[in-house]
Amino acid sequence: MSVAEINQRVDTRAIWPEGAAYVDGDYVPVAEAKISVLDFGFTKSDVTYDVVHVWQGSFFRLDDHIQRFKRSVAGLRMTLPFDDAGLAEVLTQCVRRTGLRDAYVAMVLTRGMLKPGLPRHPDNCENRFVAYAIPWVWVMSPEMQERGAHLAISSVPRIAPESVDPTIKNYHWGDLTRAQFEATDRGADNAVLLDGEGYVTEGPGFNVFAVLDGTVVSPDRGALEGITRQSVLELCGELGIPAKVGRITRDELLSADEVFCATTAGGVMPVSRVDGHIMGNDRPGPISARIRDAYWTRHEQGWHATPVDYG
Amino acid sequence: MSVAEINQRVDTRAIWPEGAAYVDGDYVPVAEAKISVLDFGFTKSDVTYDVVHVWQGSFFRLDDHIQRFKRSVAGLRMTLPFDDAGLAEVLTQCVRRTGLRDAYVAMVLTRGMLKPGLPRHPDNCENRFVAYAIPWVWVMSPEMQERGAHLAISSVPRIAPESVDPTIKNYHWGDLTRAQFEATDRGADNAVLLDGEGYVTEGPGFNVFAVLDGTVVSPDRGALEGITRQSVLELCGELGIPAKVGRITRDELLSADEVFCATTAGGVMPVSRVDGHIMGNDRPGPISARIRDAYWTRHEQGWHATPVDYG
Repeated sequence: MSVAEINQRVDTRAIWPEGAAYVDGDYVPVAEAKISVLDFGFTKSDVTYDVVHVWQGSFFRLDDHIQRFKRSVAGLRMTLPFDDAGLAEVLTQCVRRTGLRDAYVAMVLTRGMLKPGLPRHPDNCENRFVAYAIPWVWVMSPEMQERGAHLAISSVPRIAPESVDPTIKNYHWGDLTRAQFEATDRGADNAVLLDGEGYVTEGPGFNVFAVLDGTVVSPDRGALEGITRQSVLELCGELGIPAKVGRITRDELLSADEVFCATTAGGVMPVSRVDGHIMGNDRPGPISARIRDAYWTRHEQGWHATPVDYG
Repeated sequence: MSVAEINQRVDTRAIWPEGAAYVDGDYVPVAEAKISVLDFGFTKSDVTYDVVHVWQGSFFRLDDHIQRFKRSVAGLRMTLPFDDAGLAEVLTQCVRRTGLRDAYVAMVLTRGMLKPGLPRHPDNCENRFVAYAIPWVWVMSPEMQERGAHLAISSVPRIAPESVDPTIKNYHWGDLTRAQFEATDRGADNAVLLDGEGYVTEGPGFNVFAVLDGTVVSPDRGALEGITRQSVLELCGELGIPAKVGRITRDELLSADEVFCATTAGGVMPVSRVDGHIMGNDRPGPISARIRDAYWTRHEQGWHATPVDYG
């Protein structure tokens, strides 16, 4: 089936097709999944998370997401209430209660509330786990993917990795949000951010790739170590397309043969313009299109798939 | 009365002495003040806030906090549901319901939830206002203030102002939280962060001051434009102590005659050690102590005070 045809196929026995969450030991409609305004996960954005998608009834790379989530949790010196099997079970239960065959599934751990009477230090908080499944999210719509997205190179530099480690998945999006406003002000669809030295990092919720002299390149620092990025690099290997992580300058991005983006929430997303500069024939380039097709074809073949037990 | 004697004096008619909040048009116990895990204020830390304190039954510099909050809101292109008088009324109602004579009072505006069916852009969200009053918060305990706090200069640089504007009060605390862990690992009480060029910025929730050759100096960039900082500068004028905003290097901080911090949540907080370097006689310095005393004395005299109508 075409990626564009996706229309929230739902199991008829679903309880909460609009979304289900796990909070404090209970499963609830996602509208009831809330955190206190005093939780350090809110007041200090002291929180990490991960997102795995479900496509045609199967998780994609579930264990990879769980392992990355655990590394993020350890990096923030927090503690999870579940082991790997427990996490997978909670995520499965969330999806099952939505009946969704295509879903965006999040696991979140906040620093939590300060324990009464203790000094205001993150170590004195009770960490709090929340998970939820909601209908599939497209960071860029299928229509935008078909014509190729228009990106603007932001004047806002990405938060430096020395300050906030981008390999620990985080909600520090102030720079990304400013970049999104700037991009739409300039008539673009979305933004790509440079680091303080002028090298390409990432965009709001996606990794960026440039095709330079026939090689697919994605930044090696200042960006999330994306699992869809990893999938793209593996697909390039299968397709015989040279690929690597490395540095990309602003000029290289502007003069690249092709540019595309990748995210769990939408897959491989071709770009047709950067800062008004039109690439190729103003449509997705041939290498981007091949990788995107392979990404969805391999999904249908069960690549890295863990079927959801819908009960 | 001594600052150390503060012990949550409460009006006996109070409904919720543990804290009261305004959420969605209702007043509720603060434990019920929550936001959705899907609110961009959480998932993208796309939120601003301000905190005003109530001391001995009066707000301190209420209008200054409201005006700064409004500038922060405008800076993020968000919209408040109230005018100045409406904001003051909601904050007053929160305090009244706690009965607290000394309180920490917050006003918060989140980007909110994405409106159904619209693209994932911050402009397509419904902004959401929350306010709450809780018992007084000390960023540093009175005991720590009496002996002088021990600060560690963090190896983590503060998020650059080009990425996230620190003059728009925000919850991007990832760098500050890392610095707090590092500080306590090193046996210090708290942290002070430098910018990428090595100049002093601020600490987790407070501005920093150094007394250099008899002049009180606080950083002119990379830090919140603190209202307590402003109060300190005004008090220096009253006391005839030279004061200015400007740059402070790491070496200047280490060799300063005195160092102190300032915050709405605790006032003027003397420092006695920086990175193990002992200043003066390992107690609060004379200029810091004068400013701290003046800060509380002027409070008792009704300086910048707006009495709370407890009804």
